[in-house]
Amino acid sequence: MNCEVIAVGTELLLGQIVDTNSSYIGEQLALAGIDSHFQTKVGDNAARMKDAIELALSRSDAVILCGGLGPTQDDITRNVIADVMGVELETRQELVDKISAMFSQRGRAMPQNNLLQAQIPVGGEPIPIQPGTAPGLCCPIGDRVIYAVPGVPWEMTQMIDGFVLPDLSARAGITSVIASRVLRTWGMSESGLAEALHNEIERLDETGEATIAFLASGIEGLKVRITAKATTQAEVDIKLADEEARVRVIIGDEVIFGTDDDTMESVVVGLCRDQGLKLGLAESLTGGLIGQRITSHPGVSDVFQGSIVSYADSVKNDVLGIAGVPAISEEGAAAMAEGAARVLGAECSVAVTGVAGPTEAGGYKVGTVFMATHVDGVTEVLMVEWPFDRKRTREFTTITVLNQLRKRLLARST
Amino acid sequence: MNCEVIAVGTELLLGQIVDTNSSYIGEQLALAGIDSHFQTKVGDNAARMKDAIELALSRSDAVILCGGLGPTQDDITRNVIADVMGVELETRQELVDKISAMFSQRGRAMPQNNLLQAQIPVGGEPIPIQPGTAPGLCCPIGDRVIYAVPGVPWEMTQMIDGFVLPDLSARAGITSVIASRVLRTWGMSESGLAEALHNEIERLDETGEATIAFLASGIEGLKVRITAKATTQAEVDIKLADEEARVRVIIGDEVIFGTDDDTMESVVVGLCRDQGLKLGLAESLTGGLIGQRITSHPGVSDVFQGSIVSYADSVKNDVLGIAGVPAISEEGAAAMAEGAARVLGAECSVAVTGVAGPTEAGGYKVGTVFMATHVDGVTEVLMVEWPFDRKRTREFTTITVLNQLRKRLLARST
Repeated sequence: MNCEVIAVGTELLLGQIVDTNSSYIGEQLALAGIDSHFQTKVGDNAARMKDAIELALSRSDAVILCGGLGPTQDDITRNVIADVMGVELETRQELVDKISAMFSQRGRAMPQNNLLQAQIPVGGEPIPIQPGTAPGLCCPIGDRVIYAVPGVPWEMTQMIDGFVLPDLSARAGITSVIASRVLRTWGMSESGLAEALHNEIERLDETGEATIAFLASGIEGLKVRITAKATTQAEVDIKLADEEARVRVIIGDEVIFGTDDDTMESVVVGLCRDQGLKLGLAESLTGGLIGQRITSHPGVSDVFQGSIVSYADSVKNDVLGIAGVPAISEEGAAAMAEGAARVLGAECSVAVTGVAGPTEAGGYKVGTVFMATHVDGVTEVLMVEWPFDRKRTREFTTITVLNQLRKRLLARST
Repeated sequence: MNCEVIAVGTELLLGQIVDTNSSYIGEQLALAGIDSHFQTKVGDNAARMKDAIELALSRSDAVILCGGLGPTQDDITRNVIADVMGVELETRQELVDKISAMFSQRGRAMPQNNLLQAQIPVGGEPIPIQPGTAPGLCCPIGDRVIYAVPGVPWEMTQMIDGFVLPDLSARAGITSVIASRVLRTWGMSESGLAEALHNEIERLDETGEATIAFLASGIEGLKVRITAKATTQAEVDIKLADEEARVRVIIGDEVIFGTDDDTMESVVVGLCRDQGLKLGLAESLTGGLIGQRITSHPGVSDVFQGSIVSYADSVKNDVLGIAGVPAISEEGAAAMAEGAARVLGAECSVAVTGVAGPTEAGGYKVGTVFMATHVDGVTEVLMVEWPFDRKRTREFTTITVLNQLRKRLLARST
């Protein structure tokens, strides 16, 4: 089974948007054991889209089109698929109703244009999962199939994961199972990980038991991905568990903060919850980033109290009560953490202060950051000089200070 | 003149790396006035690479290959180009010398593998700009041309900007200038914008004076991009200014919050600065996102005081002083905004509170958000029921509440 991806949109060719959708779909196809040999970007042009689809159907069993399902004149994916299939478009009343309902829920009138989205090539079916106003399409053509999903990432991923991949696997009669486990790490560089795991990767190249790949992911840390293949889910699970155990011995448990969908935030919140601790923050150079990360997943309100984003020194003094201590200093960070715990009613807290730039401050150069953690009445401060730009400085500060708190909470529970 | 881009590398198809190189090259080609109708990703496979190159040469005047010029066995771009040209590879002594010198400068011995990089298809030439060990290639084939550049971004960009684009422009005899202007909007849906501008877009289709495209960009708002072409920069600037004026009349100035690199945050901070106002925030469901956005660019410390991220009701009561008012309500949002202004020492403030999920709260369903703005002692509250997931609810809340403040500050200054 072979599936190509065609990303549709002139804005992709012009580089106004980076095509991350094809990368996502390619990754999911690989994990599902479906080959993908070509991925194409094409503009909103009917003739060229038709050429691209016909070429893809000539060499692959399935094609996933991504984009061009919106309500504007540019959005012609529906029409081109109908043309390739040699059929007309028909308006589906159930889609008209669904789309109208979405607008009325928002208290807005539905523009006439959106009715175009209710049109489906005769012989095709809408994808049952529909997070937005654009229905996806599943259109058989001979022994091949064309899928179309919207270019909006949160709509695309739901349709790919929930419908397209299972449908493709069923068509392919796939019986082997491929699965991955990601070890989420922080504290070793990518080259350090590669060096530590060099011999193990060579061993796997020979035995074929599994593969290991690294992925530097900024604020998400460094991912070590283990992938294995077998005939049943149970066998794959055993292979993954075996390899995970080997990797843990080699790189050490301390740098592995979680697996798969764990994030540093979710792990820290989980530890706080287990230990019955409320968490508070004091943020200066991160400006709210740590709080935003912690609250990006639901269900943290039993642990997370809040954050005092003290950008101005007057807020550090008046709200956090650090008067008399330099705002950018080890003592400043410690006083901020203690102030946050007190003001927010939290048993543990973290605080960050430093020089995000553009210029030096407090006698420290750009990139200097003080990170404080406060648990059980004891405050510890770490100073780092990041060599990064503003964005990375803020991201690395966030994951690093939360990792400091994680290690202290782990030590506390043993 | 028509130029395709082919990104080479199995890791691109597998989604292990996002192909940002093609986006960069596509943007540069567009700015140079060279059409690019297709971009393809293909794996490190000789037969499929050959197919992709031959297809591209059949429909375009030029092809840029990106990747596969390294020293390993996977790197076969040189070989495939020679195959397409029907020639052999020859080793160029000047490249052997250059590559050896790069290694000896770093005090390292050159691995034998790197000698492969000194091979060039007969009839082709190395690209004179060579930042790393991989030479780029410029290979004429009939009246067409194949370029090859490395996949390493900082090597690729230097070769594209310094050699490929000027070479392509010279071949095309290009003398025209293309430029774009982006109008940043908030307050109309994409389909609403498309409907409003329908007639103008049809007029432009006929006259060719300019083109208009829409781009939905989440927390960045909806972008309306105007692109024009002329023989001099001055003429292009006039065309863009003319078209911008027309679009402003049609969709109204109110929804246009900025142009080009402006963001909602930068515009609001600029208005506060001009009016001598300090800004404070109170964030509940956004958890710090608004503060993080405002501080993501340097130089806001003269305006931005900070944010009280009051996730727990106790923080709303104790720090912001809203005791006695329901936390999720019109009065709650208003009291939070007033509390933030008072506690943070700010003349204007915004506050957001609502139900981010996963379950209903305070009698309101998931997605219900109250957004307050506070200026000159007057607080206004907007209630919205977003139909989105958590991420989009938080993003749309952020840009919407800042837009409310923007409109109030604008009204104030007139």
